[in-house]
Amino acid sequence: MQQTTETSGFAGRWVSYRENIKVLDATIRDGGLMNDSKFEDRTVKAVYDACVEAGIDYMEVGYKASKKVFARDRYGDWRFCDEADLRRALGDNPSSLKISVMADAEKTDYHQDILPKSESVIDLVRVATYIHQIPVALDMVKDAHDKGYSTGINLMSISNVQERELNSALELIATSEVETICLVDSFGALYSEQVDYLVQKYLCYAKAAGKEVGVHMHNNLQLAFSNTIQGIVQGANFLDATFGGLGRGAGNCPMELLLRFLHNPKYNVRPVLKCLQEEIEPMREALGWGFSVPYMLTGFLNRHPRSAIKWNASPEKDDIVAFYDKITLEEEA
Amino acid sequence: MQQTTETSGFAGRWVSYRENIKVLDATIRDGGLMNDSKFEDRTVKAVYDACVEAGIDYMEVGYKASKKVFARDRYGDWRFCDEADLRRALGDNPSSLKISVMADAEKTDYHQDILPKSESVIDLVRVATYIHQIPVALDMVKDAHDKGYSTGINLMSISNVQERELNSALELIATSEVETICLVDSFGALYSEQVDYLVQKYLCYAKAAGKEVGVHMHNNLQLAFSNTIQGIVQGANFLDATFGGLGRGAGNCPMELLLRFLHNPKYNVRPVLKCLQEEIEPMREALGWGFSVPYMLTGFLNRHPRSAIKWNASPEKDDIVAFYDKITLEEEA
Repeated sequence: MQQTTETSGFAGRWVSYRENIKVLDATIRDGGLMNDSKFEDRTVKAVYDACVEAGIDYMEVGYKASKKVFARDRYGDWRFCDEADLRRALGDNPSSLKISVMADAEKTDYHQDILPKSESVIDLVRVATYIHQIPVALDMVKDAHDKGYSTGINLMSISNVQERELNSALELIATSEVETICLVDSFGALYSEQVDYLVQKYLCYAKAAGKEVGVHMHNNLQLAFSNTIQGIVQGANFLDATFGGLGRGAGNCPMELLLRFLHNPKYNVRPVLKCLQEEIEPMREALGWGFSVPYMLTGFLNRHPRSAIKWNASPEKDDIVAFYDKITLEEEA
Repeated sequence: MQQTTETSGFAGRWVSYRENIKVLDATIRDGGLMNDSKFEDRTVKAVYDACVEAGIDYMEVGYKASKKVFARDRYGDWRFCDEADLRRALGDNPSSLKISVMADAEKTDYHQDILPKSESVIDLVRVATYIHQIPVALDMVKDAHDKGYSTGINLMSISNVQERELNSALELIATSEVETICLVDSFGALYSEQVDYLVQKYLCYAKAAGKEVGVHMHNNLQLAFSNTIQGIVQGANFLDATFGGLGRGAGNCPMELLLRFLHNPKYNVRPVLKCLQEEIEPMREALGWGFSVPYMLTGFLNRHPRSAIKWNASPEKDDIVAFYDKITLEEEA
């Protein structure tokens, strides 16, 4: 468990921790992909309170989605994170927990919907982008940075990106104002050695530019936690996790596992467990996130989980062989 | 994904596989710890058929438990694996699948209950032992070897063994007739770097004596599959897994994940999925295996999962905070 780069030898690494690691809770934001961001205020407040008590560094409350692209009445408040809605649930956030929102490239009216920092409880704007959207994404980063926010960039679906193009993207991102570059395993398709390789690559560009690297892992192959550890071992210092792994499809790295692993005395897992028990687990059956064979199959095929999400919401959900046959035939087509 | 030691470079390792890897299915044996080995013949036969069709190398059908220690009427047939019972379910095993049984040190009347190989459908006898039972275990290995069986030894609970004693144990085991030495993460407490370290240590003793190293991982920290991969990367060639991860407590490395990962064309995951769907998943609610927070907590504390198994079978099972408080207080006591 190589958490400190300072100490050497097995025993030293075992009992220590790495102080500059930051943890971001993405429960409501990523979980919102399973319920159109329709969380009760009570749930959002419970996650917020738990994050504060647990010593978590950031809470990502939702998206800043464009109301032109996303119908305001089809999605819950946490798809848009209007200032009034944020303050209704979180107050003026008097805590040291930092509030994050995600802004999707080409799906955010950022000039208009992201207020100057002085008028907002938001601290961090994370721009999510596919590789072909990098110019827009970097303009969004600049906009948020100029308005006074901390910024991050989440480069998505990189398991389907050619290495040469990834290098160009990282080179470009490294020249921007962004503070953290996050490795996102969108399809839950990466093995540990690929995580090693990619985190090293990201660090190579990021460190030279004084930026941090983050990891955001999905659990399609039951590797979300272990790949997050792998990221830590390689030097990633910004870690995404969610309560009970709540998130799209197979879900994310579970916060309760991550906090215990980190050994930093500032973190406390008990408030996470309490919120998990009272607010998150009761939603599991309706939302249907977490490892299952259909998610495993899209993970192995390095594909978006949408076909598995659809299957798991259908009456045939337990017929995993039928899903296997379907997806295998598609593969051959 | 370093699966071949022969190839070098990332691309080469990606598309290849390691031919000398063997996979053992432990579904009925390890799963038997959740239902006193009371599986229907139909289920045992279904797992057997699936193993044969899937190209799996070994199936561990159960234990050779002493009828003096285990009441014959309290446990199912698969706790004892009498020859007549094996043949009732599996016939004379005309397939190339090899049949394995586990024999616990000090809980097996091995002189009497393990027949000469010529009279049995069993191919492999795996001796499970705590470190203080090594002399008995090695006598059991010799007995099985002399009777004509392949042999393995599973050294249990090693996350609680002092390193000096582990070294002595491995030194002794290396002098025996045993063919495979299996690293067992009994409490699901090991992280990847510990797996690396321990597999390297096991290999150091085993390779010099012409033996193979195996891994048997539990899923308390959602690391059973990733730790098995870690074992493969380090050079372990004998891998335990179970259908749907069925096994004690948080369960084992899921066979469906492992077979897909291995990329050896002799393996076929579809029969595993079919059996999983028809025979294994329908038992999940009654047997209650698989990751849960109580198992996570015993894993983090490097403890036997028995308190969590008891909790998960109680009416309070969903009160994970109460379990957390209980186990934390015990820890301080």
